[in-house]
Amino acid sequence: MSEWIYPNFEPRPVRPLFLCIISNTDTGKIPGLSAAGTTPELTDYTPGADAELVETNRIITMPELPEAPGGSPTPAIVTKAALNLTGIPSMFVASGLRKKPAVPYVELGGTAGSDIRKSPAVLDARIIYERASLFGRKLAGLSDCIFIGESIAGGTTTALAVLKALGYNASVSSSFQSNPTALKERVVAEALSRAGITDGSLKNDPLRAVEQVGDPMMAAALGLMRGLKGCRVVLAGGTQMAAVLALGKALAIDGDISIATTKYIIEDKSANFKEIVEATGRPYYYSDPGLENSKIPPVQIYAQGYVKEGVGMGGAALLAGLYGIAQKDLVEETDRVLMTVELPKK
Amino acid sequence: MSEWIYPNFEPRPVRPLFLCIISNTDTGKIPGLSAAGTTPELTDYTPGADAELVETNRIITMPELPEAPGGSPTPAIVTKAALNLTGIPSMFVASGLRKKPAVPYVELGGTAGSDIRKSPAVLDARIIYERASLFGRKLAGLSDCIFIGESIAGGTTTALAVLKALGYNASVSSSFQSNPTALKERVVAEALSRAGITDGSLKNDPLRAVEQVGDPMMAAALGLMRGLKGCRVVLAGGTQMAAVLALGKALAIDGDISIATTKYIIEDKSANFKEIVEATGRPYYYSDPGLENSKIPPVQIYAQGYVKEGVGMGGAALLAGLYGIAQKDLVEETDRVLMTVELPKK
Repeated sequence: MSEWIYPNFEPRPVRPLFLCIISNTDTGKIPGLSAAGTTPELTDYTPGADAELVETNRIITMPELPEAPGGSPTPAIVTKAALNLTGIPSMFVASGLRKKPAVPYVELGGTAGSDIRKSPAVLDARIIYERASLFGRKLAGLSDCIFIGESIAGGTTTALAVLKALGYNASVSSSFQSNPTALKERVVAEALSRAGITDGSLKNDPLRAVEQVGDPMMAAALGLMRGLKGCRVVLAGGTQMAAVLALGKALAIDGDISIATTKYIIEDKSANFKEIVEATGRPYYYSDPGLENSKIPPVQIYAQGYVKEGVGMGGAALLAGLYGIAQKDLVEETDRVLMTVELPKK
Repeated sequence: MSEWIYPNFEPRPVRPLFLCIISNTDTGKIPGLSAAGTTPELTDYTPGADAELVETNRIITMPELPEAPGGSPTPAIVTKAALNLTGIPSMFVASGLRKKPAVPYVELGGTAGSDIRKSPAVLDARIIYERASLFGRKLAGLSDCIFIGESIAGGTTTALAVLKALGYNASVSSSFQSNPTALKERVVAEALSRAGITDGSLKNDPLRAVEQVGDPMMAAALGLMRGLKGCRVVLAGGTQMAAVLALGKALAIDGDISIATTKYIIEDKSANFKEIVEATGRPYYYSDPGLENSKIPPVQIYAQGYVKEGVGMGGAALLAGLYGIAQKDLVEETDRVLMTVELPKK
């Protein structure tokens, strides 16, 4: 049992698999909303670049390393470090993804999500849900424990919208240190008003909440959860994945389902991750990646509340802890990944 | 031990996975060459439709059921029947595929193969090979035995070209009852001449043979074979997969690698499957799907030498036998699949 993962996560998986869903939305391009890209235009490339980094330690289809406007690098570096140290296989799953990565990935199809203020979010949510469920059933025969992370810009805003549609009294995290809460609330209020949704009005129709004000990642995560029945499922993420848990509860998806995140999310005063998860009745786990001990200042500041979560970082770090990796080795490997990642020639 | 699979295939896999590579080429559109589609134009849609049939028992993106010009349905119906009866999971892998299926699949990228008479076949063969290898390494951690089938029109012609480039004295099968051998030989002679290849001149440069006169399925199958080291690998197909075995030997890919096909291929007088496989030093297995007992005439005639193999039919049937399924139950399920497959509304 490691000292930097909480609480005990047993038994240790035999053949774990780390999935990461990658999606795009126009909600993620609303200026000031997402920190997953130095400019709104680049957010379309961020999920694919995260996949490239984790699969090959190279950025191929994006002109630069995905980073927040403040200069913090993508949390994919922590995920990559944890997977390197444990040898656990990863698989990226595209759902409504515009810019495809130059690495192998699973394609579920679907179009990118809309700007939820302007039009229904994910018109093909039910198709994505069915395809993801079909794919999940296959994986259930191969792995005993599947972690599901995400890389989608603007995802906490769609999470907030969906949680309100389900009747949760929610506030959500941000990859900015100072959470643009007022902007998120305004976007969500506009979206709910456009769709004619009031607080809790879709608590019995969760897929309609995804269709109207959600994003394509949610449809894929829910389908996987359903298809993976019989396999242990751990959602790896912060308030976005808490929203998926809430949707799963509303869909009455059962099974051994939990959520894993970082200490940074647990300590985030602007979000109520724990309350949301507790309301779903599912257990949560978290890891402390110890990034204050990084030698690289833009990584150190993760521990001050920048970035916090993404690309399943908290779950991947938890797996590293479970596999007996020391926290300091994860930090060193994270620094090494960042220092050695190959970028496109300018 | 079943009486309709030969020879003994032991031990029975614990967590088998059935992969099928789907690709397009312009070689497959040469009139008279391929029976995978009633017209050359439709051959682009055949691999995706095979994936849809196996994954959902529905044809979605093609206007009709894939069938040979004589009216024999795609061998995907046998594969689907075998997977239905055993519950073994399948996964389709796209490599140089133009028309994508409306079901989940793994995307390796790459462009469709050229007409080998006119230009180099697979310019991105090495990229596909690397990506497939990366994906294979992940699957090796999840499954103990992976079957790899294919659906690609015109594949026996590119197989013949590659075998000649490697120095094999080869003749290949056909999904027509009367093999258009003279046409295939003419296409291959033109292609080898265009590329400046003589018999055996690329025996030490197999990836160049794929690049020049092969197809995108081969690049993917070779990469998977390499990445799956440590896992039992069974190529599921006829002379096309025998060509992949030959390429793998030239690349010095080692591991527990074999090939499984149908009795119809073993008995094909126009092809020398056994000689090619024996020259690679790998074992072969085959199944007798017993389709002469089908109640549906276009399926019965498989046993007279139409279609013979494809979509990993022989390997899937072998798995069914290993799992204790009786031959007559496979035949009945094949008929049931064909009678219940949902086609697009006209």
